[in-house]
Amino acid sequence: MAIGAFDHPLLAGLLGDPEVATWFTVDAELAAMLDFERALARAEAKCGIIPDVAARSILATLDGFVPDVTALSAASARDGLIVPALVRQMRAAVPDPHKQHVHFASTSQDVIDTALVLRLAPCLDIFAVRLGAVCRQVEALVEAAGDRPLIGRTRMQRAVPVRYADRLTNWLIPLQELGADLARVRGASIRLQCGGAAGTLDKLGNDGPAVARALGAELDLPVPEHHWQTNRHGLAGLAHWCAGVTGALGKIGQDIALMTQNELAELQVTSGGGSSAMPHKVNPVAAEVLVALARFTATQSAGMQHVLVHEQERSGAAWTQEWLLLPQVIAATGTALIRARGLLDSVELPTDTPG
Amino acid sequence: MAIGAFDHPLLAGLLGDPEVATWFTVDAELAAMLDFERALARAEAKCGIIPDVAARSILATLDGFVPDVTALSAASARDGLIVPALVRQMRAAVPDPHKQHVHFASTSQDVIDTALVLRLAPCLDIFAVRLGAVCRQVEALVEAAGDRPLIGRTRMQRAVPVRYADRLTNWLIPLQELGADLARVRGASIRLQCGGAAGTLDKLGNDGPAVARALGAELDLPVPEHHWQTNRHGLAGLAHWCAGVTGALGKIGQDIALMTQNELAELQVTSGGGSSAMPHKVNPVAAEVLVALARFTATQSAGMQHVLVHEQERSGAAWTQEWLLLPQVIAATGTALIRARGLLDSVELPTDTPG
Amino acid sequence: MAIGAFDHPLLAGLLGDPEVATWFTVDAELAAMLDFERALARAEAKCGIIPDVAARSILATLDGFVPDVTALSAASARDGLIVPALVRQMRAAVPDPHKQHVHFASTSQDVIDTALVLRLAPCLDIFAVRLGAVCRQVEALVEAAGDRPLIGRTRMQRAVPVRYADRLTNWLIPLQELGADLARVRGASIRLQCGGAAGTLDKLGNDGPAVARALGAELDLPVPEHHWQTNRHGLAGLAHWCAGVTGALGKIGQDIALMTQNELAELQVTSGGGSSAMPHKVNPVAAEVLVALARFTATQSAGMQHVLVHEQERSGAAWTQEWLLLPQVIAATGTALIRARGLLDSVELPTDTPG
Amino acid sequence: MAIGAFDHPLLAGLLGDPEVATWFTVDAELAAMLDFERALARAEAKCGIIPDVAARSILATLDGFVPDVTALSAASARDGLIVPALVRQMRAAVPDPHKQHVHFASTSQDVIDTALVLRLAPCLDIFAVRLGAVCRQVEALVEAAGDRPLIGRTRMQRAVPVRYADRLTNWLIPLQELGADLARVRGASIRLQCGGAAGTLDKLGNDGPAVARALGAELDLPVPEHHWQTNRHGLAGLAHWCAGVTGALGKIGQDIALMTQNELAELQVTSGGGSSAMPHKVNPVAAEVLVALARFTATQSAGMQHVLVHEQERSGAAWTQEWLLLPQVIAATGTALIRARGLLDSVELPTDTPG
Repeated sequence: MAIGAFDHPLLAGLLGDPEVATWFTVDAELAAMLDFERALARAEAKCGIIPDVAARSILATLDGFVPDVTALSAASARDGLIVPALVRQMRAAVPDPHKQHVHFASTSQDVIDTALVLRLAPCLDIFAVRLGAVCRQVEALVEAAGDRPLIGRTRMQRAVPVRYADRLTNWLIPLQELGADLARVRGASIRLQCGGAAGTLDKLGNDGPAVARALGAELDLPVPEHHWQTNRHGLAGLAHWCAGVTGALGKIGQDIALMTQNELAELQVTSGGGSSAMPHKVNPVAAEVLVALARFTATQSAGMQHVLVHEQERSGAAWTQEWLLLPQVIAATGTALIRARGLLDSVELPTDTPG
Repeated sequence: MAIGAFDHPLLAGLLGDPEVATWFTVDAELAAMLDFERALARAEAKCGIIPDVAARSILATLDGFVPDVTALSAASARDGLIVPALVRQMRAAVPDPHKQHVHFASTSQDVIDTALVLRLAPCLDIFAVRLGAVCRQVEALVEAAGDRPLIGRTRMQRAVPVRYADRLTNWLIPLQELGADLARVRGASIRLQCGGAAGTLDKLGNDGPAVARALGAELDLPVPEHHWQTNRHGLAGLAHWCAGVTGALGKIGQDIALMTQNELAELQVTSGGGSSAMPHKVNPVAAEVLVALARFTATQSAGMQHVLVHEQERSGAAWTQEWLLLPQVIAATGTALIRARGLLDSVELPTDTPG
Repeated sequence: MAIGAFDHPLLAGLLGDPEVATWFTVDAELAAMLDFERALARAEAKCGIIPDVAARSILATLDGFVPDVTALSAASARDGLIVPALVRQMRAAVPDPHKQHVHFASTSQDVIDTALVLRLAPCLDIFAVRLGAVCRQVEALVEAAGDRPLIGRTRMQRAVPVRYADRLTNWLIPLQELGADLARVRGASIRLQCGGAAGTLDKLGNDGPAVARALGAELDLPVPEHHWQTNRHGLAGLAHWCAGVTGALGKIGQDIALMTQNELAELQVTSGGGSSAMPHKVNPVAAEVLVALARFTATQSAGMQHVLVHEQERSGAAWTQEWLLLPQVIAATGTALIRARGLLDSVELPTDTPG
Repeated sequence: MAIGAFDHPLLAGLLGDPEVATWFTVDAELAAMLDFERALARAEAKCGIIPDVAARSILATLDGFVPDVTALSAASARDGLIVPALVRQMRAAVPDPHKQHVHFASTSQDVIDTALVLRLAPCLDIFAVRLGAVCRQVEALVEAAGDRPLIGRTRMQRAVPVRYADRLTNWLIPLQELGADLARVRGASIRLQCGGAAGTLDKLGNDGPAVARALGAELDLPVPEHHWQTNRHGLAGLAHWCAGVTGALGKIGQDIALMTQNELAELQVTSGGGSSAMPHKVNPVAAEVLVALARFTATQSAGMQHVLVHEQERSGAAWTQEWLLLPQVIAATGTALIRARGLLDSVELPTDTPG
């Protein structure tokens, strides 16, 4: 299917990010959910909440467990999410008397939010690598440009002379700042979710914090002092960081689209696209895509701010909105970084100095 | 793949719209593009632009022609769209000397925009049917409610007594108005795109308008007096209409979520969802989804206004943004209508009059 | 004060619209509210709801009545709006036994919404005049350009030759379409609001519709079949139309900013702005402002879609959002039209044909 | 005038923030600009760029200098900003031969951006104080609530029992996190802007960095390693933080509006607003305003992401957008904090435990 452009087979070359897409497949999502449930069983056994033998039975069953996707999808219509049906499927597979210990004291939100961050974490790793590579590409361009002059332009009019290196450095600084900020953004968003039905781990009594710590250790996820069931600021901050990245790349794209105008010819793009009507044209396709992704992500980021109004102990409306928005923000960021790398690889200063 | 929530297999029950999705498959998109190219050949033959024999050869070849999707996708990276590669594939399949007449005088945008509206048209048909059905459901509820009293609530506080029928009528009016407005919205958006490389049908000389009229007749599409290559107001208007529909349904969803609060119990939803932690709960899942879809579509509609700033004779940046936004707006509208129908089917007035 | 840029004294030349601003002063707003209350008294007397003598007393008192603005503002903190305090002030001024008939059966929303549309109506008149003038300016440019050639540009690259008239016509069509659509938009938004406390005119019994008709006649406002207390689609549609106008003008602004680049020199702007650092520059200031206003209005239009989720019989949250958004959308539209007129007046085709 | 709701005299009690408004008056803006010009003269004299006697003459003249606001406003239409006209006015006032040294080597953007952050800085101080106070109010409520039970609600349905303290703590955590993050946000946004015509301080040769450091010292502003002329991420980050604050307060507002529903009565608000039609009602006005401000700011934050696409050495279009957006984001944040304080002051747990 191809309603979402990032999933569109015909646009995979233009908008796809195969590496990031890996983390948004059904398999990856279910695997992360099963990782959660296994880790929960181990953690609860360690803390003496469920019997060791139950945990072993759960782990043995879930190792290789293949959920019935059709049934899960059907259940999502009724429940708004797949977890109740998934728990039923798991419990049906685990032998008595252990099945009652599957998913014990947990809730849908713990599973879904944690399974999300388990998959966002590798995406951030990917972004870090790509962002570093883009920075190095711009740095190399700065070095190569030396003192080559460029007409500075303000309000789209020729202003005073600057150097290519000056404009390129303006590209570089925000990317470097975003790179330096990623650890903070990661810390605020990639965190275990463990709150139980209403955020109080009510079924665990005084053992709640210990189970959460054990669960975080099992999943290699930081454990926040307080659950973030209704506190979506971490994810909104991640979306803002992504909009920063696409925005910074969008400025580069806009600049390159302007610089490669035929009459300006301040840059040449060697890998531009063709036209069905005019085969001779070299279109700065990747530059335009960067602008499109920047504006798309800017638009989506507003939605992620709206979901901060997350009422009571859990808002189905606000939470569902996140599912509609956040994966695309991540995909747009991944794609923008890929396309930026390709674009910067293909950029050449003109042989003749324009001026 | 499942970056876009409307394509997500695990959420198909919750967010999917199988009927609308049919029009956003690769097959449907390529079929519409080939429909365009066939109709173009027929129209240009009729107008004496290309030889009849060439048109017959093109039609014979394209009948059953299966494009190489992998090559198209790869080409999208370079060209920003698949049409140049698709034209190359078609020309490679059509025998000499006719291949030169494939896609003659046309351009990528003619193919893509027209192939889009050919698929939007049946979606609007679907919406019209569903919207009518939703209206009838609300009308039936109005009738069933008779003069049953309801506490009117303003600023979320009990105000003066009204009747259920009053609130339900407030739901109904905007839906009826939107239904009455659909023909206008359709007229402004479902139109042939036929402009050639830069909107002037430059290769057709004085025959441009005749070819456009013939092409529109072949495709059963209205032919606007002027191409809409840079005039994206029709699509923005369609997105606005969609946001109106999801907004009107979002108000219903928000009202139902409030009315089904346990203490108010002004409505009962018989088909609400379950919880993994609390099996006894009946969650008004569909009501919340309507709110989520309303806010999601509201957010997207801003993006569709941004693309009105479509520079020169074609903006790759603005056009690509549409591809990222519009299909999801359509999908959200289709899903909201489906879920509204289900929700309204499951709504019951309480046996006891609340007061 | 100057938090809102449209009210900013230092930016009045750039962003101000003195004509539209007239309708958003405290005086204009209070005058419209008092117009409503006077018309209500007349209408209710005509329908036999209140005594003629009471209506005469109310009219005599309100003629020249000057509300205490400080007290109104203070009351807005408590009540969320000024109407309860305004009614108290009016009742304190009207002699017994007539004061009880002031504002009878009405509610804050009737006053505020109707006072809004009474002021939006002349703004739409202003827009119609300006939009017509802008269209005539573009038409004159089309005529003056004759067959002067222009390089068509797609994806910001030189494509095939077109004529200036072609690009200018692309500017013109959406503006003409928006002009033709204004009557519909006006009909859907400029309507009497008359619903009473919860939309049912509960205090008027069977006389509600007659009073509404009489009130509409007094105020020269169409009376919808059903109140629009929770149906904000009319105002959202008006905001969408405004975003259409600013978007169409934003495309013109973007094109002119590109055409006046020094190396392209496809257009000359004779009245461009200066720079504090580079006195020789001629900046296409108005062109850039059109782009800024288009993007600003696009952003705001999302907010106006969010307010469609207007719960129960009146949502204070959604309604207050409108007050934060709509006046600025109107102001942005007025300003964009002013600046477009000035810009188009100053545009000249170059003496030498670029090419 | 009153196009912007935050400037609206009739809504000053509801939406006004007199303390923040102080920093957005014409006087405050011009004072900050003159502060910049004075500090520039001192810094350039210190660095030996302009003669000491010129600096003394400039300082003497600007001390008490009153710009001609009408002329500035008129000039904004032509120049897109007031600085060229302001510089002319200053130079007309400074005696020869010193007038040539006014504003030397600087540019409009240095003046306007720096004058902006000089006024944003005290706003952030105000926010810090208010946010701390709000946190202490919530902490006091947590303490007062002790172990008072509350029905936890998920998807707007009764779920498992929690305590008032649990929900209140969910309010508190994001506010505390935002408070802890403010120093970082301030560091990234409150910074000297000093780049000259195109960001290279071209007229200062090798003395550029020294002048920037001296200027920063004069103005008590951090001096970034690189100008932020086209790097608007700092301001976008500030807007995001503001949207975080209004979002966190919007969640509180939404919760309180739900909790104070008559049938739930989980909280009482003692200072709610009245109704013109129903004097007995107590409306949770401030709670609704918090929701409105959260959604308004969420909408605006998208605009601030769009302005990251800031082309070449200065984009008039992107920069003007900031002026339309950012002051209102600041005002919304200030107002939300004021209203939250008042609301939390008026909140009382019910005498009877609901359940």
